[in-house]
Amino acid sequence: MTGRLLTIGDEILVGQVVDTNAAWLGEVLTGLGIRVERADTVGDDRAAIVERLREGLRAADLVVVTGGLGPTHDDVTKAAVMQVFGVGSRFDAEVFEHVKARFERRGLAMAPSNRSQAEIPEGFDVLPNPVGTAPGLWRDADDAHGILVVMPGVPHEMKTITGTSVVPRLTALPGRGVIVQRTLLTTGIGESALQERIAPVDHLLSDDASLAYLPSIHGVRLRVTGRGRDAASATERMDALARHVIERAGRWVYGEADDSLEAVVGRLLQDRRATVAVAESCTGGLVSHRLTNVAGASAWVRGSVVAYHNDIKRDTLGVPSEVLEAHGAVSRETALAMAAGVRRMAGAEFGLATTGIMGPGGGTPDKPVGTVWIAVALPDGASHAVRLRLGTDRVRNKERASTGALDLLRRALAGLVGEDSGPVA
Amino acid sequence: MTGRLLTIGDEILVGQVVDTNAAWLGEVLTGLGIRVERADTVGDDRAAIVERLREGLRAADLVVVTGGLGPTHDDVTKAAVMQVFGVGSRFDAEVFEHVKARFERRGLAMAPSNRSQAEIPEGFDVLPNPVGTAPGLWRDADDAHGILVVMPGVPHEMKTITGTSVVPRLTALPGRGVIVQRTLLTTGIGESALQERIAPVDHLLSDDASLAYLPSIHGVRLRVTGRGRDAASATERMDALARHVIERAGRWVYGEADDSLEAVVGRLLQDRRATVAVAESCTGGLVSHRLTNVAGASAWVRGSVVAYHNDIKRDTLGVPSEVLEAHGAVSRETALAMAAGVRRMAGAEFGLATTGIMGPGGGTPDKPVGTVWIAVALPDGASHAVRLRLGTDRVRNKERASTGALDLLRRALAGLVGEDSGPVA
Repeated sequence: MTGRLLTIGDEILVGQVVDTNAAWLGEVLTGLGIRVERADTVGDDRAAIVERLREGLRAADLVVVTGGLGPTHDDVTKAAVMQVFGVGSRFDAEVFEHVKARFERRGLAMAPSNRSQAEIPEGFDVLPNPVGTAPGLWRDADDAHGILVVMPGVPHEMKTITGTSVVPRLTALPGRGVIVQRTLLTTGIGESALQERIAPVDHLLSDDASLAYLPSIHGVRLRVTGRGRDAASATERMDALARHVIERAGRWVYGEADDSLEAVVGRLLQDRRATVAVAESCTGGLVSHRLTNVAGASAWVRGSVVAYHNDIKRDTLGVPSEVLEAHGAVSRETALAMAAGVRRMAGAEFGLATTGIMGPGGGTPDKPVGTVWIAVALPDGASHAVRLRLGTDRVRNKERASTGALDLLRRALAGLVGEDSGPVA
Repeated sequence: MTGRLLTIGDEILVGQVVDTNAAWLGEVLTGLGIRVERADTVGDDRAAIVERLREGLRAADLVVVTGGLGPTHDDVTKAAVMQVFGVGSRFDAEVFEHVKARFERRGLAMAPSNRSQAEIPEGFDVLPNPVGTAPGLWRDADDAHGILVVMPGVPHEMKTITGTSVVPRLTALPGRGVIVQRTLLTTGIGESALQERIAPVDHLLSDDASLAYLPSIHGVRLRVTGRGRDAASATERMDALARHVIERAGRWVYGEADDSLEAVVGRLLQDRRATVAVAESCTGGLVSHRLTNVAGASAWVRGSVVAYHNDIKRDTLGVPSEVLEAHGAVSRETALAMAAGVRRMAGAEFGLATTGIMGPGGGTPDKPVGTVWIAVALPDGASHAVRLRLGTDRVRNKERASTGALDLLRRALAGLVGEDSGPVA
């Protein structure tokens, strides 16, 4: 099955907005086994939309359109769709009630132009939009055209409609069987090491069960796909594969789907009614920033010290001068003393620390740029330190070191520290 | 003049990479007065590239292609270009020497496939790539085709070639005259307030001198464009407009072009050989993270305290209990005490502080979600506080509050605090 994406909006073409919808949809459709062969963007220009729609619906099995569905005069997607199929529209009372109710709930008066959101082109199904006003639209394939899906361009609304309506409909197409997916999130291990850990896996792989590695700066996502005649057989294949992955590499799996590492850490802390304090040198505040991005973080974050200067490591965190002199600021010993110090200072159950050389300058033959030590201090007084060997890009190094630190805390909370769980020194 | 963008690469279609090149190029071309009417993406598929190139070069005055120029077999852009024009290639010795020299400088052996990078399609000019191996290509318009520009997809290389070769060539096209641009970066003032400040400006605006407002979460960028028969007249018009803007709104202008606010603050601190320490409550480490993203930050950042819990505001920063009790943690008084406290504690010349309610919960009728106080403590013992009224989105609030704090420090360093420079309480 082939697919094309069509993004609509002047704001994309003039560069005011970066189109992230196309990449997100590209990954979802690819995961469903659909080969995405084009991703086009045109402005709020009816003739241009009509041209690309005609071309796409003739050539591909599926065209997914996002954007240009709002109530304002420059939103012309619906008019273009109606022109392509030579149809009018019908007024959908249910959609209208939904739009009206959303305005009422927010105490806002509904502008009359919003009535147009309930006009549905003939021959199209409504894909409900639980998080916005403009509904999605679906038209089945016919002899001359592929399937057409139209969604609003607001990423949050587009993603919700994709998840609740588009993916279920695509997987339920006759002849395709059922496709189900899970995404396991790992960090702290590279793609090839992860592959080695997960092997042997060939006996679980087939046309109906597949495993994809999706690496990023923060870790490798594992997309597990199961296919079958029905949901039960597809799920069984998917789960057998996921179970195998978790059995072999579970200690690196911190979550699923859209979990963030900081949210997972926050949940683990909250479950234990425990708090954390962070002593950051090389990450410069990024670990704390990520922890406090999670709503409710004040319940589990006591606070942090960014100890960029050695005076602060000594005076505020209580790292002994002898440790700094004997081992240097970037060392296992200093990291451990920082973690213990910030835990004590802030009155937290857990202390977390980072110290390293982020670049571009500051490296030595012994401790090249990219050398980072991270440490965690536990409620029982025990502590663990890990060395990371990162690259030379300062901003990427900060990102990777903060992920390393958050994952060390996660493993400490999950009782996984001290095991064979990465480059523990 | 009309333009089209064509991005090439399977990694974009399957969603592994978000295409940021198109937005960047869209803004640059729009700024030059070119109407971007399409931005298409196809995979590493020669037939698809040929199809889009033929269509684009027939319909538009300019087609800019990025990606698919590397030495590997799946990089097929050059072959597609040669097919469109029915031409062969010539070996360019100068390009070859450049490629070879880049490998030698990095101590790497050059794979034989890199020889192909020096094969230049007939009829094309070389656009030198000072930061990579694959050169850009330029073909002038003819009766049947618009101008064709081909560049590597690596953003850094694409931007460099655009700046050094493509923009100068586009602005030098006969009949277009010369176009020059400056982008002034502002923060701390909204788009409409900025417009009021800058008015009256109509006497400086014309077909040959224009001003565009580009708002984002961090502030409004002002793009000043001058056009003329020659560089002198274009620059004169641009500079007259820029001078007017700076005269009227200079206190909100923190930099130009690609400056970041944190880098500007770092330069100001370095010029004074001064250091800063930050006490962050609501920003949770983001101010420190941004300051330490700048290479060399250890020279001007002493350190920070993320005082999420009131105990830390009191014990580590020395905020008096009476202040916390009488005025609350989110108050002018607490912000001032935090700034003074962290300055003293860390031994820095400047102290900077943030405290606020970021949401989603925690608001009261007096202090709704989005209430933020920021404060700066100066070397002479004076201090200033500013209240921000932000929205309800936690992550956006953190971004905006961190920008507000960095800008307060910038204005303090530039001697602009205390003047009519924003919502100073």
